[in-house]
Amino acid sequence: MRVRHKPWAKDQLAANKQWVIADPDEKKGQWNQVFGNQHPIHLEIGTGKGQFLIGMAKANPEVNFIGIEFQPSIIVEALDKLLETPLENLRLLNANAADLPNFFSEGEVAVIYLNFSDPWPKNRHEKRRLTYSSFLDHYKKVLGEEGRIELKTDNQGLFEYSLERFSASGFILKEVSLDLHAISDLKNVKTEYEEKFSKKGHRIYRCEAWLPKSDIRKPV
Amino acid sequence: MRVRHKPWAKDQLAANKQWVIADPDEKKGQWNQVFGNQHPIHLEIGTGKGQFLIGMAKANPEVNFIGIEFQPSIIVEALDKLLETPLENLRLLNANAADLPNFFSEGEVAVIYLNFSDPWPKNRHEKRRLTYSSFLDHYKKVLGEEGRIELKTDNQGLFEYSLERFSASGFILKEVSLDLHAISDLKNVKTEYEEKFSKKGHRIYRCEAWLPKSDIRKPV
Repeated sequence: MRVRHKPWAKDQLAANKQWVIADPDEKKGQWNQVFGNQHPIHLEIGTGKGQFLIGMAKANPEVNFIGIEFQPSIIVEALDKLLETPLENLRLLNANAADLPNFFSEGEVAVIYLNFSDPWPKNRHEKRRLTYSSFLDHYKKVLGEEGRIELKTDNQGLFEYSLERFSASGFILKEVSLDLHAISDLKNVKTEYEEKFSKKGHRIYRCEAWLPKSDIRKPV
Repeated sequence: MRVRHKPWAKDQLAANKQWVIADPDEKKGQWNQVFGNQHPIHLEIGTGKGQFLIGMAKANPEVNFIGIEFQPSIIVEALDKLLETPLENLRLLNANAADLPNFFSEGEVAVIYLNFSDPWPKNRHEKRRLTYSSFLDHYKKVLGEEGRIELKTDNQGLFEYSLERFSASGFILKEVSLDLHAISDLKNVKTEYEEKFSKKGHRIYRCEAWLPKSDIRKPV
């Protein structure tokens, strides 16, 4: 996502520690205390301007949502929305997805959302794709038994790649849709990208990748 | 596939036992003797009029091909082609895919092709789909370690369903393509259906489903 650089973004994030968690390492294993309840935790990686996660948090008060976004100039827009309409079940992290196992203990996360992630189409950039095997290993470490990833994209190449990677990493594919918007689904909360690309006539692809019940994970 | 009923079809199949194997049960574990060599065996289920398998057999003399088709009035057309252009590495079976484990011993088949299988879109017909779990269990029994299924279809629903079923049954997905004809692939041998539906502008979907190397199969 290309955005105008906002030099004040980092300061604004730092000034709103109740919404943007500054020390996620110290919350590891204790996110229930951050939210003040035992609700399941759903994580969006690359949360962008937050439209999807804010919609989800409004629609699902019994779930705690955390949005991770690496770029301060983007996540600050999600923060702006949150300041306008505070949501007790939503927090933001200005951090790198590669650090996930430092932020969450094994099984602390129930669901991970990957929405319209950068496809990195060139082979030499494969390691940057959020469904590259090293990322999937990180997700496995923080997801609980029968935890799942929910992926949406309009990028055919990324979807093909991700189906293969999920399968190779031992995830079970469910709810595969090769044209999500062809079926009316009132529960589908759309991202900014999703609205834009769907209007252009792009197909939206979706799948869920579940950890099997008997999955034996190595200790973190 | 709807075809005109041909009352003479069964007689014609029976009269050409060198091409249409009449007693596949008795060949179990001994298909190498039928072909007179040790080449790997590739099986097409629902071989129809045979265009795909005949093309494959011509292009790959180092592989033995067997086409299974339940309807005599259809497979007799594949036989007609074979009588015109005999291929030593191709045989036909007028049989039911549910009987596969009676015809082949464990590991006797290297590759299974499912091309444009009937999608059976109604839920109550799920058990008839050739990627229903009971069929996948049959395929597992006859496929060798690292054996694979190669599936092509223009039916979105069947493809979504099959990706999920393969994954749930422990197959590893490879070579997923959501628009096969968008990339030029000179090695892709087209079926009758594929030519027809591709010309109509349908997308052709393809994937491979591999048995993992360490897959432990129950004895047949």
